[in-house]
Amino acid sequence: MQVKNFSRQSWRSILKWGDPNYFNPPKKRLVEYMKENLGVTDEDISSPHLPGLDKVKADKKPGLDEKTLKAIKDMVGEENVDISDYERVRHSVGYTYIDIVKLRLEDIKSLVDCVVYPRDENDVVKILDFCNKNKIAVIPFGGRSGVSRGLEPMKGGISLDLTRHMNKVIGVNEVNMSATVQPGIFGPDYEEYLNNYKTPYSPTGYTCGHFPQSFEYSTVGGWVVTRGAGSLSTGYGKIEDMVLGLRFATPKGMIVIKDYPRAATGPDLRHIIIGSEGALGVLTEVTLKIWRFRPSNRVMFSFLFKDWDNTVTCMREIMQGEFGVPHMFRISDAEETSIAFMVEGITNTPIDKILEKRGYVDGKRCLMLAATEGDRDRGKLIKKKAKALAKKHGAISLGSIAVKGWYKHRYADPYLREDLMDMKVMTDTLETSCTWDNIMNVWSGMREVVKARPNSISMIHASHAYENGANLYVIFISRIKPGDEVDDYLEFQSAIIDAIIKNGGSLSHHHGVGKMLAPWYEDYVGKTSMELLRAIKEQLDPNNIMNPGGTLALDFKGKKGKPLPVK
Amino acid sequence: MQVKNFSRQSWRSILKWGDPNYFNPPKKRLVEYMKENLGVTDEDISSPHLPGLDKVKADKKPGLDEKTLKAIKDMVGEENVDISDYERVRHSVGYTYIDIVKLRLEDIKSLVDCVVYPRDENDVVKILDFCNKNKIAVIPFGGRSGVSRGLEPMKGGISLDLTRHMNKVIGVNEVNMSATVQPGIFGPDYEEYLNNYKTPYSPTGYTCGHFPQSFEYSTVGGWVVTRGAGSLSTGYGKIEDMVLGLRFATPKGMIVIKDYPRAATGPDLRHIIIGSEGALGVLTEVTLKIWRFRPSNRVMFSFLFKDWDNTVTCMREIMQGEFGVPHMFRISDAEETSIAFMVEGITNTPIDKILEKRGYVDGKRCLMLAATEGDRDRGKLIKKKAKALAKKHGAISLGSIAVKGWYKHRYADPYLREDLMDMKVMTDTLETSCTWDNIMNVWSGMREVVKARPNSISMIHASHAYENGANLYVIFISRIKPGDEVDDYLEFQSAIIDAIIKNGGSLSHHHGVGKMLAPWYEDYVGKTSMELLRAIKEQLDPNNIMNPGGTLALDFKGKKGKPLPVK
Repeated sequence: MQVKNFSRQSWRSILKWGDPNYFNPPKKRLVEYMKENLGVTDEDISSPHLPGLDKVKADKKPGLDEKTLKAIKDMVGEENVDISDYERVRHSVGYTYIDIVKLRLEDIKSLVDCVVYPRDENDVVKILDFCNKNKIAVIPFGGRSGVSRGLEPMKGGISLDLTRHMNKVIGVNEVNMSATVQPGIFGPDYEEYLNNYKTPYSPTGYTCGHFPQSFEYSTVGGWVVTRGAGSLSTGYGKIEDMVLGLRFATPKGMIVIKDYPRAATGPDLRHIIIGSEGALGVLTEVTLKIWRFRPSNRVMFSFLFKDWDNTVTCMREIMQGEFGVPHMFRISDAEETSIAFMVEGITNTPIDKILEKRGYVDGKRCLMLAATEGDRDRGKLIKKKAKALAKKHGAISLGSIAVKGWYKHRYADPYLREDLMDMKVMTDTLETSCTWDNIMNVWSGMREVVKARPNSISMIHASHAYENGANLYVIFISRIKPGDEVDDYLEFQSAIIDAIIKNGGSLSHHHGVGKMLAPWYEDYVGKTSMELLRAIKEQLDPNNIMNPGGTLALDFKGKKGKPLPVK
Repeated sequence: MQVKNFSRQSWRSILKWGDPNYFNPPKKRLVEYMKENLGVTDEDISSPHLPGLDKVKADKKPGLDEKTLKAIKDMVGEENVDISDYERVRHSVGYTYIDIVKLRLEDIKSLVDCVVYPRDENDVVKILDFCNKNKIAVIPFGGRSGVSRGLEPMKGGISLDLTRHMNKVIGVNEVNMSATVQPGIFGPDYEEYLNNYKTPYSPTGYTCGHFPQSFEYSTVGGWVVTRGAGSLSTGYGKIEDMVLGLRFATPKGMIVIKDYPRAATGPDLRHIIIGSEGALGVLTEVTLKIWRFRPSNRVMFSFLFKDWDNTVTCMREIMQGEFGVPHMFRISDAEETSIAFMVEGITNTPIDKILEKRGYVDGKRCLMLAATEGDRDRGKLIKKKAKALAKKHGAISLGSIAVKGWYKHRYADPYLREDLMDMKVMTDTLETSCTWDNIMNVWSGMREVVKARPNSISMIHASHAYENGANLYVIFISRIKPGDEVDDYLEFQSAIIDAIIKNGGSLSHHHGVGKMLAPWYEDYVGKTSMELLRAIKEQLDPNNIMNPGGTLALDFKGKKGKPLPVK
């Protein structure tokens, strides 16, 4: 039974992803598949597990005294301070799997004390100054779409919500092909503004080029401080390739970096701020690259390969071909391909039988999807060259339909999670990056751990590619252990993280570290680097008010390689 | 009279650029031009000014006691320690204009105490440890091609010369399209190794993609720690785009960064090390991107525009066209174009008269040169698209001859300097970067200052372009004031730097900061950033042994906006 009705004040309203009125229940074929393969029962389907339908109630009162609250209200205006149970809970979680479980259990002990909506940079500076003097924790808050325990308030304090006021496009500079925006603007608002910015130089408007799966409910500031990527980043670049200039408020003052195209003026401090995950300060303004918006120029193509080896090798050869790279570029391993074919109703059709006969066998065959944006002639050239390489690797062309479908539904998948969890099905993701010479090790290492768990699905894809390597993204689906939701999950997740590290994958490609991966972080970056990061933290935030309690392991007090306790 | 004969032990042998046996005297037309426009006399030509022909003699004895020297020799081997006058002087200068003047005056007071040639990373670690304990300055030394007073030993100490032993290619990984090298390898050795690395995947070998004008006499380590660029960087990327992984020895331990293609794991410390200019530690190993070497695939094209405005706008539109960008991409302003045409003997020929008639008038017309590497079809597409844009801006196509000439002579220009200085002609360069909407301001600001000096030439080009801006590179030529070589020059140079800053240009695009631009650096980066950089320095190098005395203004004690005293 799908949960569609729930109160706006319920835990459910917080744990549900995205648009409150949009639902993406699993297709019938997927439900049947889960019944067969994961042991999902009719009862699991008819009676939602931990649906979180009660009204939100905070576990404790705000920890700030009246005088402090008054001082904050005086600074930013009474209407911009909220200490309601609902907002305090909502601002204390992201979309980390663990967050969702806690919301379903209706039990959250790590809470911010109050929510503050700064009106402008000046408010941010005042709040940081005040909190620094009074040693109150500050957690910058954007779209709340993070999946790395980034927002978890280990020491209470203030959630600094930038989305209410600091959500404007400050200016578009089409001579420089850049836009300057405030951090609290959501993806669609930013993109819509650019799309509508129609001029003789670009009669069809502009595009931001950054489209994470969380696009609809993530903010530009969040993209930057997590060092994120979008689904078109192979072409447009990851967020660190787009940031030209910025303004960043720290407890020790403003860092302002101008939008020079490039410079040879010592260390590039942009790269300290990008990925700082709220632990060094608050982004107050950012200047980003933009591009012409010309969706009709898209060139889309896809291929089916006989096996994963050829798929990976072909992706690599395209990335290394020096003829240009697609903007969107994805490959799916055999299990992900198999499930996609099954869900789309292709498996066992006459077409499927022809494919099987020609050697594209279910369980071995793998999909590659690609699309170029920008100049159409460039796109056509890339398609032609890619096709030749795909053919060399035994692939068959599948045309553009699958890519069109991907564009259409690219933000829909996260909506599936609440339905699956209602059915006692755990679904989560981990992601990493690695060099091409190591991709098979990392892939099989991750997969092995997921498949070692009974009744599990492991779907792995690479959705971002580079000359020297790619990311790997695993979607793992398995059964929830009722009554043991948290520990069972953490144990499973830790084993996958261990496998990634052991096989030489990076700790994250675009999700970020947060408090989730902090226990692995220190060994990952090494002693001298960790000490340097802590010195940077100490310099900018000497009282450790910025997102304290484990972020980036800057003040890590847990056990290495073991998840931080969940409260 | 050209100075061709000089002793290997002379000051001249140090101040002469590059290959001791190669000379590039000014062409006759240029000499005539300088006679007419700069007032160069026959006597200036016949009697070289301050030729530096005497035998090098150090101003003072090495400042390290016997015990210290013995300890160093015990660490690295006696044969790897040199305290000769000649090597101490040679290791105390780069190719900064001021360095050359000091060498010509045969008077250098800032000297290192000894030169050490570490055999491997282990030697570097031992030396840093020893020097840290004993508070002895250490200046990493590569190709000595820097032009920003980067090597000037303000506090004596050890010159750590990486070119004798730490000059190997450690490995080529063609699956990842990367190479791992030691920092002391010179450009040509690295490139030759890659060119000869012929395999089925690239039967014509590989290329490093990084070709600064100093290529022949600069090292990979120098490229990285100065945050340099090469003449093909518009296509291959600046050095910070090429560095994948590295090993970096600091007084506080090793920083090791793996060659993941990308990661979202907090601040990216590569960007602290790139551009650290010897002030934070010593690069001991670096993994860089490589590409297939396919010179026969080059697509070359050039255009002549009627004015600078159209040239700049067309360059911008090509960079923003999203059809791909050339690897080499240069535009010359009217004065540079005029002098190029004059030197090449085109001015006043019948062809020139036709050009003039068609509106391409000397003193207004401007050159654009471009070349693509890599895939030839991509190159052809870019050429076609660029041609259409150039035509729109009133340009005429000049074919590929000028570009071929550029490729052939691209490393020759620096050889001209010693001949001009012999004739009492000062020639030097400054460079900056800026956004497209500001490029005309920066260009005219720089030019105005140069042209305000009597008898001066100002040749400005943009040789690196980006979506949002470009660099500007000014070659200024004027008369030396005999007897006032240093102060007269510094006053002139300071005025140009001031103009760059005032008009919103970056302090450097690829030369780096060194001690030369340090007096402008603090105001340039801002207070909070400067404090952060100093905290980073304090963390990695608490005793300030790494290239001390002003580098990146980390321990700056001079007067802001005024050059550091020249000793």
